[in-house]
Amino acid sequence: MGLVVQKYGGSSVADAEGIKRVAKRIVEAKKNGHQVVVVVSAMGDTTDELIDLAEQVSPIPAGREFDMLLTAGERISMALLAMAIKTLGHEAQSFTGSQAGVITDSVHNKARIIDVTPGRIQQSVDAGNIAIVAGFQGVSQDKKDITTLGRGGSDTTAVALAAALDAEVCEIYTDVDGVFTADPRVVKKARKIEWISFEDMLELASSGSKVLLHRCVEYARRYNIPIHVRSSFSGLKGTWVSNEPPGGQPVEQAIISGVAHDTSEAKVTVVGVPDKPGEAATIFRAIADAEINIDMVVQNVSAAATGLTDISFTLPKAEGRKAIEALEKTKGRVGFEHLRYDDQIAKISLVGAGMKTNPGVTAAFFEALSNAGVNIELISTSEIRISVVTRADDVNEAVRAVHTAFGLDSDTDEAVVYGGTGR
Amino acid sequence: MGLVVQKYGGSSVADAEGIKRVAKRIVEAKKNGHQVVVVVSAMGDTTDELIDLAEQVSPIPAGREFDMLLTAGERISMALLAMAIKTLGHEAQSFTGSQAGVITDSVHNKARIIDVTPGRIQQSVDAGNIAIVAGFQGVSQDKKDITTLGRGGSDTTAVALAAALDAEVCEIYTDVDGVFTADPRVVKKARKIEWISFEDMLELASSGSKVLLHRCVEYARRYNIPIHVRSSFSGLKGTWVSNEPPGGQPVEQAIISGVAHDTSEAKVTVVGVPDKPGEAATIFRAIADAEINIDMVVQNVSAAATGLTDISFTLPKAEGRKAIEALEKTKGRVGFEHLRYDDQIAKISLVGAGMKTNPGVTAAFFEALSNAGVNIELISTSEIRISVVTRADDVNEAVRAVHTAFGLDSDTDEAVVYGGTGR
Repeated sequence: MGLVVQKYGGSSVADAEGIKRVAKRIVEAKKNGHQVVVVVSAMGDTTDELIDLAEQVSPIPAGREFDMLLTAGERISMALLAMAIKTLGHEAQSFTGSQAGVITDSVHNKARIIDVTPGRIQQSVDAGNIAIVAGFQGVSQDKKDITTLGRGGSDTTAVALAAALDAEVCEIYTDVDGVFTADPRVVKKARKIEWISFEDMLELASSGSKVLLHRCVEYARRYNIPIHVRSSFSGLKGTWVSNEPPGGQPVEQAIISGVAHDTSEAKVTVVGVPDKPGEAATIFRAIADAEINIDMVVQNVSAAATGLTDISFTLPKAEGRKAIEALEKTKGRVGFEHLRYDDQIAKISLVGAGMKTNPGVTAAFFEALSNAGVNIELISTSEIRISVVTRADDVNEAVRAVHTAFGLDSDTDEAVVYGGTGR
Repeated sequence: MGLVVQKYGGSSVADAEGIKRVAKRIVEAKKNGHQVVVVVSAMGDTTDELIDLAEQVSPIPAGREFDMLLTAGERISMALLAMAIKTLGHEAQSFTGSQAGVITDSVHNKARIIDVTPGRIQQSVDAGNIAIVAGFQGVSQDKKDITTLGRGGSDTTAVALAAALDAEVCEIYTDVDGVFTADPRVVKKARKIEWISFEDMLELASSGSKVLLHRCVEYARRYNIPIHVRSSFSGLKGTWVSNEPPGGQPVEQAIISGVAHDTSEAKVTVVGVPDKPGEAATIFRAIADAEINIDMVVQNVSAAATGLTDISFTLPKAEGRKAIEALEKTKGRVGFEHLRYDDQIAKISLVGAGMKTNPGVTAAFFEALSNAGVNIELISTSEIRISVVTRADDVNEAVRAVHTAFGLDSDTDEAVVYGGTGR
């Protein structure tokens, strides 16, 4: 039996009871003969409480100190988890990100892992210990300052450690039973996916699915680390995310992996753009220079009478104001008529490698939305994904209609959400 | 102007307002031209809350993990303090004990500092920053594990850093205005001491005064670091603790520095010990082997009729059970009659170098107690201290009577206690 990396989110270790429950699961894995390395997030609301304290002393907390502050959260949860495991009669040692060899760049609050040197972790598990590692944090290569990895950072820590330690699998424990064919909060009949390819999981993650973040899946794909997403609250098997189905067993690849939705974006429309070369380039150069990541981009056919066209794109709501300001500055050069900003939109995406070889998928998707009376405002496609923008008010109905139309509904209401969400 | 080390306790940084108030004081010192290094404790009740969490997951929390847990407290306060200072327009960087070079032995929960290598701190202040250092913590020399220094550890961190950085002074900010001639909670007319020698301060600390711990004063005396104990709540000058009065100014050395009391001890009496050589040695060898620190020891003159004597000693209440168990085991060899255990006692001590040359002090002390109707149960003296044991119920009255008798009462009720107590 090889080495297993397990990651537990904040909702799994929200209180002393949660920590004791998780400790038992960890000990099970150890008893089964595995070497076990555990990555843990801060307990429940700890991070929010620390952020609140920071805001009380400083309007814009300094990055270096903010990271120092936030990393106290994992320090608490990992020490308590190690104590709980020792109480069960097994040896455990906790390690900070720095002690675990998680080396990052110096971009505070959203550092990137540039190397993992897990010598102390390897030594600890070789000596028979269960190693508990603080998620979400590292130490900067140049300045030796404490850094944090930003949203979803603990998942990335787990995958990065799994890669560095050559683990068999990286188990991500969360408050749902796995990856579902749609958000179980919206679709009661969503079905748990047994296995999904890295490729489809990446598309789901970038389309609004929150179980795994894009960055973590990308890391796992690069180092070919199978991820097993499962619940720390139930004993059920979860979802395997990997290149091939686990154990070489034949698992039928579904045509459609799932339906994702995202209500965190807004839509900007540049109205009345002269339809000539270079206009779009000027617009998107302005957006890029403002360091705004955009998602979908659509340009209408220009009206013959005027020679003007409209260009629409979506972006995170939080970047809306910055984008409008950047575009206003280009008005003189581009000569568009005006800007429209709309944050009452939703994006609904259908993901599945099977759509490459099933030409009817796009049509069936649009028919399902039409039958549900949902109007489509923008369309964008990739090889294994179709996304549309609709009114925000329509999102739940649209997701359910599409889920049913593609035969994804489960016979039972099996989807359960156990707790809150960690980071 | 040289380098100043300031230490702020938990009650000074109990909440966001406290942190902002302390940040202003620190900036004042910086504006006055000093290089400033700050040692900070965990906020208010943080440590107690963490201990409570630990007890919920483990009946006897493991030392290594307990230290990892507790050090999260200073990580929070130091990061917030650095943010608050930066908000005031000054540069600040926070450092863990490990980053600050506080090297300790491996005795978790009560580690001893064995070296301080403050390279990063020196570099930080030389670059114009205010350096904020986590109190109470270090890193073990051999295993590179996080350690904590035990009770009063932040004061020791401050003095040790002051010594390593060759500081002008170590300022200990607390919730009282300085060292008083008696505990201001008991004696309203207690007077603030302007200057006290290391020698007298050591006796006060070991007699129950809680403003500074013995270990910290001992460290300061060894490296000759002047300590200035003062309040973070008022702007008043506090008490200087040093070899010589500060600034070479003549400060009259009082005959009596102060009255200390201690209600944390219990008294054990071994009744009916045969009065022959070796009996006391057997008794105290048993106590020492059980690693119990004893304080006062008194042996009565033996009764001529029986040839038996009684031996009494005091020890921390927490060690009472262990001591009784250890003594019971020696009963066969020593042949004493029985043991008496009494935890309703108090120790009252009068401290002052002046008593060396003032032979009337002891008599005046006993007279004061007698006039107040307080019975004396044990007496022990050193060159500059007299201690007696009385009933616990008599302690406040006894302290006030002695304080008045030696002319220590202030004309006004100047003693103020501003908040709770930190560590």
